[in-house]
Amino acid sequence: MPLWGAIEAGGTKFLCAVGSGPRDLRAETTFPTTSPAETIGRCLSFFSEQQQKVGRLAAIGIASFGPVDPDTASPGWGYITTTPKKGWAQTDFASAVGRALGVPVGFDTDVNGAALGEHRWGAAQGLSTFVYLTVGTGIGGGGLVNGELMHGLIHPEMGHILVPHDRKSDPYGGWCPYHGDCWEGLAAGPAFEERWGQRGETLPPDHPAWALEAHYLALGLVNIICALSPQRIIMGGGMMQQQQLFPLLRRKVQTLLNGYLQAPAILRDIDNYIVPPALGRRAGVLGALALAQIAAQ
Amino acid sequence: MPLWGAIEAGGTKFLCAVGSGPRDLRAETTFPTTSPAETIGRCLSFFSEQQQKVGRLAAIGIASFGPVDPDTASPGWGYITTTPKKGWAQTDFASAVGRALGVPVGFDTDVNGAALGEHRWGAAQGLSTFVYLTVGTGIGGGGLVNGELMHGLIHPEMGHILVPHDRKSDPYGGWCPYHGDCWEGLAAGPAFEERWGQRGETLPPDHPAWALEAHYLALGLVNIICALSPQRIIMGGGMMQQQQLFPLLRRKVQTLLNGYLQAPAILRDIDNYIVPPALGRRAGVLGALALAQIAAQ
Repeated sequence: MPLWGAIEAGGTKFLCAVGSGPRDLRAETTFPTTSPAETIGRCLSFFSEQQQKVGRLAAIGIASFGPVDPDTASPGWGYITTTPKKGWAQTDFASAVGRALGVPVGFDTDVNGAALGEHRWGAAQGLSTFVYLTVGTGIGGGGLVNGELMHGLIHPEMGHILVPHDRKSDPYGGWCPYHGDCWEGLAAGPAFEERWGQRGETLPPDHPAWALEAHYLALGLVNIICALSPQRIIMGGGMMQQQQLFPLLRRKVQTLLNGYLQAPAILRDIDNYIVPPALGRRAGVLGALALAQIAAQ
Repeated sequence: MPLWGAIEAGGTKFLCAVGSGPRDLRAETTFPTTSPAETIGRCLSFFSEQQQKVGRLAAIGIASFGPVDPDTASPGWGYITTTPKKGWAQTDFASAVGRALGVPVGFDTDVNGAALGEHRWGAAQGLSTFVYLTVGTGIGGGGLVNGELMHGLIHPEMGHILVPHDRKSDPYGGWCPYHGDCWEGLAAGPAFEERWGQRGETLPPDHPAWALEAHYLALGLVNIICALSPQRIIMGGGMMQQQQLFPLLRRKVQTLLNGYLQAPAILRDIDNYIVPPALGRRAGVLGALALAQIAAQ
């Protein structure tokens, strides 16, 4: 049974693991994201030690914060590219890991990784076209279309779509440094905290904040549904831990679409159309494991 | 050399043709869209006559107004489904053509057909992920992702994405019967005519109407770019005959994205990123021909 390495590379922390599959993660470590040299160095140390114990890994998968270059035909493949995160712009990540450890490396965005994990073992099994969204300190989206991970020109940047914003009923201007009141500028965690002066965890589930949050999330979902026609939308991330959001935003999506899309999945079975990740908080690391499996093929 | 049949099925008129490729359309006929029985009947008569002259066609492709069911695994494959167009809801189209003429039939949306035509012979050659949009009496969008036509749950309905609308500077409420001021409610032909009291052809190219039109078109393009990361966007349809729109909306897209997507195609080469169809008004019928070629494979 081959063993794979997995790196869930987040802007705040990294998680590294080794295992043969979702029910067999044999080693795991997590550490804060500091400088690229130190953070990638800790990844290399972890996997070097593991390889001394268990032998050569079949491949390592990296599901990374971005933007990244996931194009295997590009000279910049495997780089974290234009991130505003200090010190990380233009960081050679995947090639550095492959060179140091002598193994094939799979590399993609965190959300594409999570989508792949959900496709193999979670809420997207058997689907060919679906979207995975994370709503936390930002909004990120990825997924599969026609059975393959979404890339295109770079990769989707779903957090930056532009949605209606009624400044009379909600004068909050949005926090996105590039676009102000784009989707993540209005609906990600920082917007919630600035608008209400506190984190979601401290507000009761029937506070009006949640209806407004569901409204903005639903506006973005409608745009993704109309642009991509996904067979399912999986929504993870810190904000979506607030379970009361799901029924609110499902209803808002139906109201906004107003019966235009005559799909039973949306009209009658929306509880199974907009869902949390079946892998929960493990979607990221298991997605990285799935990226490793693809890299070794 | 095999001969193919092509049906460009529009809500206003149909165009049927026979040929071996884009430079060899040997017969062509066009007629208004009336009832399904009459209109499809005229298609059948045309192709029957053609088959008596040239022998059996290798396949017929249909690029149709919608919504349609393009899923070959579905019992409703080949139907025009929930269209508000009188008499056409739940019309068996593709199977009826195939049964009557004894040939394989390829069937998809008009915009997916046009996208396929542009991929084979036009502005999308060599690309794996791109979008084809038509802006006319409505807005429709299709395309290829990872080298295959976009379907998913149904097929994209890009005209109905929701975009910011400042009612103070533009009080026009939109005409979409389902969503009011969705993208096509604000930016398709009927919106232009209701807002300005006349058709675009009668306004000079420097009229402020064009800047506002470019603004709304750009809002939708930004959303499509962020959701899908296309390698190129091809824009056809009656509205895009107004060539002055292209430079205006390219600049608006750059302004709205505000440098967030560090892709040379957008930052420096946007003239080749947002383009008219290379096949011009032939994109539809040639797309249907390309659908025929796929159906015969």
